[in-house]
Formats: sequence, structure tokens, C-alpha cells
Amino acid sequence: MDVTKRLSGANYVLWGGREGYETLLNTSLKRELEQMGRMLSLVVEYKHKIGFSGQILLEPKPKEPTVHQYDFDTATVFGFLKRFGLESEVKVNLEANHALLAGHTFEHEIATAADLGILGSLDINRGDPLLGWDTDQFPADLYSMTLAMYQVIQAGGLGMGGMNFDAKVRRQSTEPEDLLHAHIGGVDMCARAFLIAAKVQEEGRLAEIVSTRYAGWNLPENQAILAGKESLDEIAARSEERNINPQPRSGRQEQLENLINRYL
Amino acid sequence: MDVTKRLSGANYVLWGGREGYETLLNTSLKRELEQMGRMLSLVVEYKHKIGFSGQILLEPKPKEPTVHQYDFDTATVFGFLKRFGLESEVKVNLEANHALLAGHTFEHEIATAADLGILGSLDINRGDPLLGWDTDQFPADLYSMTLAMYQVIQAGGLGMGGMNFDAKVRRQSTEPEDLLHAHIGGVDMCARAFLIAAKVQEEGRLAEIVSTRYAGWNLPENQAILAGKESLDEIAARSEERNINPQPRSGRQEQLENLINRYL
Amino acid sequence: MDVTKRLSGANYVLWGGREGYETLLNTSLKRELEQMGRMLSLVVEYKHKIGFSGQILLEPKPKEPTVHQYDFDTATVFGFLKRFGLESEVKVNLEANHALLAGHTFEHEIATAADLGILGSLDINRGDPLLGWDTDQFPADLYSMTLAMYQVIQAGGLGMGGMNFDAKVRRQSTEPEDLLHAHIGGVDMCARAFLIAAKVQEEGRLAEIVSTRYAGWNLPENQAILAGKESLDEIAARSEERNINPQPRSGRQEQLENLINRYL
Amino acid sequence: MDVTKRLSGANYVLWGGREGYETLLNTSLKRELEQMGRMLSLVVEYKHKIGFSGQILLEPKPKEPTVHQYDFDTATVFGFLKRFGLESEVKVNLEANHALLAGHTFEHEIATAADLGILGSLDINRGDPLLGWDTDQFPADLYSMTLAMYQVIQAGGLGMGGMNFDAKVRRQSTEPEDLLHAHIGGVDMCARAFLIAAKVQEEGRLAEIVSTRYAGWNLPENQAILAGKESLDEIAARSEERNINPQPRSGRQEQLENLINRYL
Repeated sequence: MDVTKRLSGANYVLWGGREGYETLLNTSLKRELEQMGRMLSLVVEYKHKIGFSGQILLEPKPKEPTVHQYDFDTATVFGFLKRFGLESEVKVNLEANHALLAGHTFEHEIATAADLGILGSLDINRGDPLLGWDTDQFPADLYSMTLAMYQVIQAGGLGMGGMNFDAKVRRQSTEPEDLLHAHIGGVDMCARAFLIAAKVQEEGRLAEIVSTRYAGWNLPENQAILAGKESLDEIAARSEERNINPQPRSGRQEQLENLINRYL
Repeated sequence: MDVTKRLSGANYVLWGGREGYETLLNTSLKRELEQMGRMLSLVVEYKHKIGFSGQILLEPKPKEPTVHQYDFDTATVFGFLKRFGLESEVKVNLEANHALLAGHTFEHEIATAADLGILGSLDINRGDPLLGWDTDQFPADLYSMTLAMYQVIQAGGLGMGGMNFDAKVRRQSTEPEDLLHAHIGGVDMCARAFLIAAKVQEEGRLAEIVSTRYAGWNLPENQAILAGKESLDEIAARSEERNINPQPRSGRQEQLENLINRYL
Repeated sequence: MDVTKRLSGANYVLWGGREGYETLLNTSLKRELEQMGRMLSLVVEYKHKIGFSGQILLEPKPKEPTVHQYDFDTATVFGFLKRFGLESEVKVNLEANHALLAGHTFEHEIATAADLGILGSLDINRGDPLLGWDTDQFPADLYSMTLAMYQVIQAGGLGMGGMNFDAKVRRQSTEPEDLLHAHIGGVDMCARAFLIAAKVQEEGRLAEIVSTRYAGWNLPENQAILAGKESLDEIAARSEERNINPQPRSGRQEQLENLINRYL
Repeated sequence: MDVTKRLSGANYVLWGGREGYETLLNTSLKRELEQMGRMLSLVVEYKHKIGFSGQILLEPKPKEPTVHQYDFDTATVFGFLKRFGLESEVKVNLEANHALLAGHTFEHEIATAADLGILGSLDINRGDPLLGWDTDQFPADLYSMTLAMYQVIQAGGLGMGGMNFDAKVRRQSTEPEDLLHAHIGGVDMCARAFLIAAKVQEEGRLAEIVSTRYAGWNLPENQAILAGKESLDEIAARSEERNINPQPRSGRQEQLENLINRYL
């Protein structure tokens, strides 16, 4: 971290790729997590002591090499940070394939982190849905990258964070030239996806449909619910009095998927 | 909940089997989670208002029917409770197959909930590691049930919670008799596993090995670290001064697995 | 089949969605497969007897509702057909999500069936890589559909077979309008993917790179190996004599992925 | 193979751990499989030429390191052998974790190979159902090992084959002593499982239930169906004439699982 500060680095990832356990037979989860919490608190104290102004990042990863990594996914990391009072000090560095291994999409992890206020930075690589390990391939799927970029834009961007190719060429890509193709393809993929996502955002049709879906919650009486100004009894009484009987409305998933595909 | 109170029920599970989303294209994660947080707060307020003294439980489940359920696993639920200040009001009802679908073992979920102080109750069923949906089979695997029961004992038991067969016979088990076999086998499995786990606990060999592993952390200087009385600088200085250079020690996984197998 | 003949149907799918087993404890695999083999032979005899000129199709599917379906994937079906001498009588009807559940890509199943001479027809739908059951969604991913269509073209088309939406709208798509969006999007996806794949084929760059990779095998001495005209000793002697020492060459995966992406 | 012969080896495994492909973009499946078929034929010819009397074995494995291994599972290998006329020359060496990665149980692979006449030898290790890669752990689960051993006994034993620990201790088991614990536990597990399976076999209750399930097929008229002496028309006519209207009978899975558990 001292070196990062001297180099004016903006991000410091505490890469947690080894922190987890293989079997509870030899592990005290309680002790492990307390030790990790203390360690992270010490790091944050140190950051302030030396005046490093960049952000501290944890990298969620569900498994590999251990069976149970402690930083399983964004939601798990958030709970851990909250427990130790670090949720405003530490953010997450998200990786597409770690999301997949945890049973999530990349855009789910981005949206979750944004919602929880801990979106930090992105590792731009991909895994293979058919494989159960971390292949760290360069991105090649415009569709899923576009969905990820759209969530980045919804989140207001990455702030101090950025995008990093934590990726490698495939085992059979044995020539230096392959590295060039991989990076060119990867950067190009990011740029194309971002431009498409930006257009989706600017034209606003998707956002409008989503906001229409939740429009009812903007009414004063429903805002009052969210603001905690009413009890269950009061809400129930009002609902009965007004004979509120909402009908299910379509989620319109296919229409929205078509909409995105028209931008590709 | 009113009925539960009248019946002197000790547990009230807010079964969340439908709460999740299919696609972010039509979903505001931010709004959904705020609404869920408010809903749960209202329920807790109501519980206190009517004087229901049982415990409120959420049931973690990662998927099915939706792609992304909000109560993915215990760690996710804990973060959610912390966010809305409900971690001392709401506990979890854990189910073996939900653990599996989330990429965890049942014993992991039990140990995690115990560590976080939210272990509530258990649904005793099982899934099939080869299948990706919730089969809700009756338990039949003594080994994994023993590991689960051992964690229950470590946690000091289930308190107000209990064990419930949220299970069904297989599609081809079409006769009433099958229900009998299923329940007899399931109860028997719980009893055998508990007796074995109790013996493991009473003889104390496993616990002793685990506690030896962490023994160093009981030293006053290391307790001081955990208590937050030292900074990274101080710890580093002390380590260098004493020339502390710990060597990796074996996790002894195979030995411990053999130990358990000798009890079966 | 009589009705299909009267309607001039060209395909008859023996949909095997129920044939499999839950546990070997109650199952004789040997008997089950012999019975299935006999059943299929009877069906083929009947086809010839009534003079039905369409093709008989099996539909590979690895699981759901049973744990182990007998027609797991294309390679399994081929072995089954060979065993009962039916490989020139029966073909496969492939479905994208069944491929995924079996650990394959859709294009893998198409290429395998084409290579084995049993490519029959396609169910055009998709699954969700995050889910372990058959969602039967309408296709929405241009990239993977293009890869599938490219294999269809490589195979010389589908012959008597065709493409069929064995798909349904999502659970939350509750309005009639959703069915329209789904079908429009699905047909459009097929058309776009086919046009792109046709262009890849016509421009021939991808095919050229692949054929260059295997060019050495076209040499007379290597054709002789494939034709079974040489023994291991002879091949070894020749290799040593000519001091053949091939160096690994790059598989160029990233370059080829970029190439495809430029067509999208 | 020459060395194996000189050492009086009884088995020669063509370990296929590298044969597969990453992407169809750079691969001709047709050429690859023809080359593999020729290679295997050459090996078999060579075996006969040098008079090696042991058995040649392929080892099914679905993935790792490639995305699509050619010897995916036993059924795939059988189809491949049939295609090249090698099904009486080559058998399979099965490994528990490869079964799991392919979506099967170990006992499924053993029963399938036995039924197809290609059961050769076993690698006795295990994977972790939560992980998607080949952990090659020592066996520790008595239940699943018993089910595997029962299938070995059903198959009439392993003939020339045997059992081999293709296993390694876990990453954290860093001391020589761990190797001892692992092998002792593994051998013990095999022995216990075999003894239990032998007892299940000798007492015959499980076999009796299964054979009762299929008893109807032993009737002369049903044997005639299997022997191919009747057409669909004849079978249909007979069924209508006798008013055959079979009712579903329970698969009794829970009862059978209980039965096995009573032996453990």
C-alpha cells in the first residue's frame, strides 16, 4: 500500500483468492471470520495513518482453490463489512467469472454492489458456463458485456475504479500474437458494449419501462409505507377501505430482450 | 402470525420461495430490496405489537422459481438483516437442498448462521448433487447428516427452532406405504446422526484437534490483536523483533475424515 | 405415426422426456436398455410396414424429470442406435437447453450428430446457464445462435428436419402480447443468426483457418495412416527416418472469436 | 505397452486426459474423431502383434483441461468403440470424479460399462459435488462407495482390472503422515464398502425386489417380445384381446434407501 500511495494508485485490491476453508472438520468459522475482520480493520486503519487516498477493495470469489471461500459474492462481502463496521471504508472489485461460479450473472453482482454502495472496480474477463473453474478468458460475448455496462452506467460509473483484464489466453494459444488478438478483442468488446449500453440509456426506453413498473410506489401513500410512517395495520386498513386488489402484470421479459437485441 | 400466536407456535417462517427476479431488464434491485426491508420491518413491528414471542424466520434459497432469489443464502440474509437493523429480530430456517443449490454444504450454512447469531430452525430434507432443482427428498445420507448434526451441537442446539420434514416422496413412490418408509427412514436418520455427532462431541477428539490448530490465538499478545489493541505497525514490529516465522502446518483433512468415519 | 403419415409429416419425434431412472436400487439398467432397444426396433419396423417415409427422431435429454435419462446426449444415443443396429434408421432432434444440461454447447451437439450421420431436427429454445432445469425459453442470444447455425450450414443443412420452438414465455410474462414478442424475437434471432453464419461460410475465412490446421493430414502418407494402410511400426519408422518433430501451433482461439464478433 | 508386457501387466490405460477441444471455431470434430479412431485401432493391432495379453483401457472424462473431452463418459466411449469396431478390444477405466463431472454417479458408470460389456478397471478416488474440477481426493463416503461396490459385484467383479488410488491429499495436507492417513482411510473405505455390498448381495433382499419389479418380462409372451418374434401390431392385438391395462407400481425408492442404510 505504501508503494501504491507513492505511485498515486487509486485502488488497492486485497485479493482474497486464498482465503477460505476445505472442511469444517478442521476449521472454526467463527475464529476465521473474526481474524479476517480484525485484519481488514487493521488495513483500513493503516490506510488512514499513511494518508492513502485510494480505495480498498475486496474481490468476491466463491471457490477455488478452497471449497468455501469467505468472500463468496458481493452480498456476502457486504454482510461481512457491515459486521465489522467497514461498509463505508471498503468496496468490491468484481470479476465476471467469479460471479458465474457463485451462481450469479456479472450484471447481478454490479447491480448488487451499486445498490449496497460498495461498487469499486471491475475485472473484465469471462468464464465458461460449462466449466466449474476460473478460466479467466478474455471477454468475447457482446450481449452479456452490454448488460454489464448498462448496470455500470445505471450505477453512475465506476468512480475511482476502472476495468482491468485479469485474463489470460487459452492454453492452446501459444504464440505472442495471440496476446495481441486477445487484448484487441477484449478492449474492442468493452468499447462496443459501452457504446451500445450508452445508447440504450440515452434513448431511455428500457429505463422508462422499468420505472413505469414501479410507478405506483412513487405515490405519496406508498412513499409513506417506505418511509416507515405506517404500520401493517394501517396499511391493511387503507387497502381494505380502498378495495385495493392489484392484478399481476406481465414482466415483459421477451419484449425487453428483443429491445436489447435491436441495439446489438 | 395471529393464528400462530393463538396456537402457541414458537416459529413463524416468512417462506420466501417466490421473492426474486428473472432479469434485471425489468427489475430495480434497489427498489425491490428496500421494499422487502420495509416489509420485514413491518412484520417485526407487528410481532411486538401483538406480543408474539416466537421467532421470525427467513428461509434462504438461491433460485427456483426465479433465477435470482433475494434470500440467496445465510450470508446474504445476514447482510440484508444488518442493513435494515433486523439482525437481532430475525433468524434463518435452513434447508439442506437450498444450501446445495447455493454452492454450500448444509453444515456450512448451519455453522455460518450460528456464527452470525441467526441460526433458527432446520428443514430436514436433501437434494441430489446431480440435479439443479429442489427435489425435497427425505434424508438418506448418514455421513452428511452427521456433519450437520455436529454443527447443531457446536451451536448449542436449535433453541426455539426444531426440525421439520419439508420433504416429499419421489415421483415413482406412488403408494401410501412409501410415505411411511420415507418418514421412518428420515426420523431414523436424524436420530442416528445425532447420536453419532453427540459421541464425537463427548469424546472431544475432533474438538481438541481444531482447538489445537487455533491455540496460538489464545496467547495474550494475539488476543490483543483481536481486541484491537495493536496497530499493523506494532504487530509488524513485534513479529520482526521476535523473529516470528510460522511454518505451514497440515490441515490433516484425511485424518479427520477417517476419524469421523470410525464413528459411523 | 399413422396420423403423421396421413398428414404428410416428415418427422416423428419419439419424445423421450420420461425415460430414465431415479436410483439403481430399483433399476436393472440392462433390462431397461434392452426393452428400449426392442421398442425402438418395433417402431422402425412399423414405419416401414405402413410406408411412412418421414424420419424417426429421438430427443437427447440428460435429466428431468428423472436423475438419469437414457438418451443423455447425442453421443449416448448414437451408441444406443449402433448397439441395436438402428443408426441408419433413427436420427436425433436436438434442443439447446438439453445440450446445456448435459454439459455441452448446442453447436457441439449439432456437430456431433452431423459427424455421426444422425442430425435430424432442432428445437430452437434456450436454457439459463445459471439454472439446472429446463426453462425452455425463447432464444435471445445472437452469438450462440450464430455458432449453432454455422454448424447447421457445415452439416449441409437439416434435410427433412426443421426448426421448432419448443419454448414457452417466462412465468411472469402473463399477457397474450408476450407470446407475440417471444415468437417475433425468436424467429428474428434465427434469421439474423442464419444470415451471419451464411456470410461467415461464404467469405470462407474461418473455414480456411480450420482447414489449414488439418492440412498436413491431406498429404498422401498421412491419408495412408487414416486409410489403415500402415501399422504403428511403419509410422514410427517413417517418422524417425524423416526426423519428424512437430512443434505445437497456436489454436488461435481469441483471433477466431474476434473474427466471429466482427460479423455480429 | 512393451514395458507393461515385460512386467506382466494386466492393464494398459490410454489415459485420455488431454484429448478434447476448446472451441469448434478451430476444430473439425469429424477429423479429430477419425484420427482418434485410427490411433486406437493401431494400438490394438500393435497389442496383438506383440502378444500383449492384458486389456487396453480408455478413461472417460468429460472436461478438464479442455471444455469438451472426446471420451466424455462410458456411453460416449461405447459409441466410439462401436463406430470403429473396437468394442470387444477396448474397455474403460472408470473414475468416480469423472462420473460426477459428467453428470453421473460412479455406480451409474459402473453399471453402464457392465451392461455394455466394457467394464475394465476403477480409479478409486472422489470429487466434491460443490466443485467443478477434478479434485482427485481419497474416498471418504461409505454410502456412495457401497453403492459402487454393489454394482461391481452385480457385474461379476472386475476381471483383469483392479482398483487404483489415482488420488492425492488435499492442498493443506502438507505432511508425509497425511499420505498414510489418506491411504489407510481409502483402503479401509474400499474394504468396508465391499463387505457391506457383499452382505447386501448375499442376503438377496435388494436383488429380489428388483427382480420382482421386472418379473413380468420373464413370461414367455414377453420374452417373445424381447426376442423380436412379434410385431407392434401383434403385441397391440394381444394386449387388447387380453385387456392388459397395467397400473403404475411404486418404485419404493425410500424403502430401498432405508434397506441399504440398515446395512451401513
